[in-house]
Amino acid sequence: MNIYDIAKASGVSTATVSRVLNGSERVSEQTRRKVLSVMEAQGYRPNAFARGLGLGTMRMVGILCTDVSDPFYASAVSLLEGALRRMDYDMLLYCTGSEPADRDRYVELLLDRHVDAILLVGSVFADPSGPALEKAAAQIPVVLINGSVPDGNIYCVDSDVEAAFRSAVSRLFSAGARRILYLYDVLTYGGRMKLSGYRDGLSACGIPYDPSLCVRLERDPDSAVRSLRGLIAGGLSFDAVLCAEDLFAVAAGKALRGASLSAPVIGCNNSILAVCASPALTSIDMMLESLCETAANTLNILLEGRQAPHRAVISSRLVERETFRLP
Amino acid sequence: MNIYDIAKASGVSTATVSRVLNGSERVSEQTRRKVLSVMEAQGYRPNAFARGLGLGTMRMVGILCTDVSDPFYASAVSLLEGALRRMDYDMLLYCTGSEPADRDRYVELLLDRHVDAILLVGSVFADPSGPALEKAAAQIPVVLINGSVPDGNIYCVDSDVEAAFRSAVSRLFSAGARRILYLYDVLTYGGRMKLSGYRDGLSACGIPYDPSLCVRLERDPDSAVRSLRGLIAGGLSFDAVLCAEDLFAVAAGKALRGASLSAPVIGCNNSILAVCASPALTSIDMMLESLCETAANTLNILLEGRQAPHRAVISSRLVERETFRLP
Repeated sequence: MNIYDIAKASGVSTATVSRVLNGSERVSEQTRRKVLSVMEAQGYRPNAFARGLGLGTMRMVGILCTDVSDPFYASAVSLLEGALRRMDYDMLLYCTGSEPADRDRYVELLLDRHVDAILLVGSVFADPSGPALEKAAAQIPVVLINGSVPDGNIYCVDSDVEAAFRSAVSRLFSAGARRILYLYDVLTYGGRMKLSGYRDGLSACGIPYDPSLCVRLERDPDSAVRSLRGLIAGGLSFDAVLCAEDLFAVAAGKALRGASLSAPVIGCNNSILAVCASPALTSIDMMLESLCETAANTLNILLEGRQAPHRAVISSRLVERETFRLP
Repeated sequence: MNIYDIAKASGVSTATVSRVLNGSERVSEQTRRKVLSVMEAQGYRPNAFARGLGLGTMRMVGILCTDVSDPFYASAVSLLEGALRRMDYDMLLYCTGSEPADRDRYVELLLDRHVDAILLVGSVFADPSGPALEKAAAQIPVVLINGSVPDGNIYCVDSDVEAAFRSAVSRLFSAGARRILYLYDVLTYGGRMKLSGYRDGLSACGIPYDPSLCVRLERDPDSAVRSLRGLIAGGLSFDAVLCAEDLFAVAAGKALRGASLSAPVIGCNNSILAVCASPALTSIDMMLESLCETAANTLNILLEGRQAPHRAVISSRLVERETFRLP
């Protein structure tokens, strides 16, 4: 059953059926009713293309993330897909990679697709890329998960990760740590918030910032372990480790054990790695489920044409496991 | 070459060509065959062409997986998204959950969306669900990754995981193991292949199958560790562990260490968990990248209207790390 069949059964041209689907005013009320009643009688479901043309919506939400093979983003995409499904929207997923220029291109592609809204997963999208995002946000709802931007048209569901890192430093300090190694990879918006929380935390504890304790690593477990072993062998001394990612906390644990050292370690994201590491990682949980749920709710409100808050902040929490217990 | 040329060469109207493209049932089998043979003879590419004429192709491929938050599926989706993008197709992702009835519903939804093809990620889709998949495969290319089905219309890119598990058993046997514990969760198509490989491997080594060594676990690290600790405390004796998933190999490592025991352990999937576990896991690598690349190639060939092999089998390999080295 397609548009040709509907046209024939209604005794009109396919152009007229298209006009009905388009909601064109150039169709008489009588013809419109006839075509619609044939569609109903035949159980006709206009295909996505026709729906897009005719009813003004594809019921499709575009999701951008840099890399869905990252477990944190994978969990987010999984949660969002479920939430969108419950809202009767489909998900068009684009993985943008890490080049800002590509991000802009993908936003343009989503606009070409006439998606109803865009969800941006990851703090990387809080960084300036190009004009496409602003353009998109002027046309359709755009919601950023895990970041904040000044553009008033982009809705933000952010995490208080800066406060969480500040608090982690003070907890390590209370446990006796004075030289806290900080491990990170990128300084995206989220990366900068974490680093800022680390530095503010040191400052609040009266510990001067030592750049040699702030170490950038490759996001690859083997390479991270090698780098850390090199630093330890080179005489770098520290009495605690705070990490921007669970992966680095895993690497720190391996490097410490390899050197027969021991120190409290705190990771971030509370991922499957935190549970599977030996010893299991204490980790900052950014409450991804709440972030995604809040973002989906915001989107739903906006798609219904109602007012939503421009910014929501979700509290993180520290999940204690074997690598660090609160004193 | 356009729709008018095809219509002229077939001796039918353009509307009839459209009906053939749309898979309408209101075309006689004879006419359908004639139009298709003209298309084939002329090297006509219906999708790209139909798109140009607005006949409804969305250049969109539907992907079904049970849960994209699973790292194995997340990697697959990430690889496929990139491959589809290079083919200039977008990806519509549905996470079906584990209910067979839901799988069928999602296939119907993809057909409603008039996707150009469907990719099924995971051996779970090799199990019978309902009539929707067969119906889909009669209309558009359907490619199953990591499994095989008898339906000749569904193209399969399978892994030789059964052989890999058989070989893992024989390698553990060569290293002296005689009581090999097998840990698994589900008996989907893939799960049955692995179990069958384990049992055939035992048989080939002359070891009788002992059901008490074949243990089903929850796919949750803490619960798996608890179950294994209980079994060890209850006196279950074994001298090697083979696991259907890296997650269970992690749990086995933790349970062994907790009981001050040691035994070779082999996981499966060669995931980030294998690298991050301590000790790092020896793991069966099902070569996900090759599976996805082959599936995308198959799809590309089919979308171009050419013939593709109905089944391809990708060889697994054993990646040796700390939990087991070949003797």
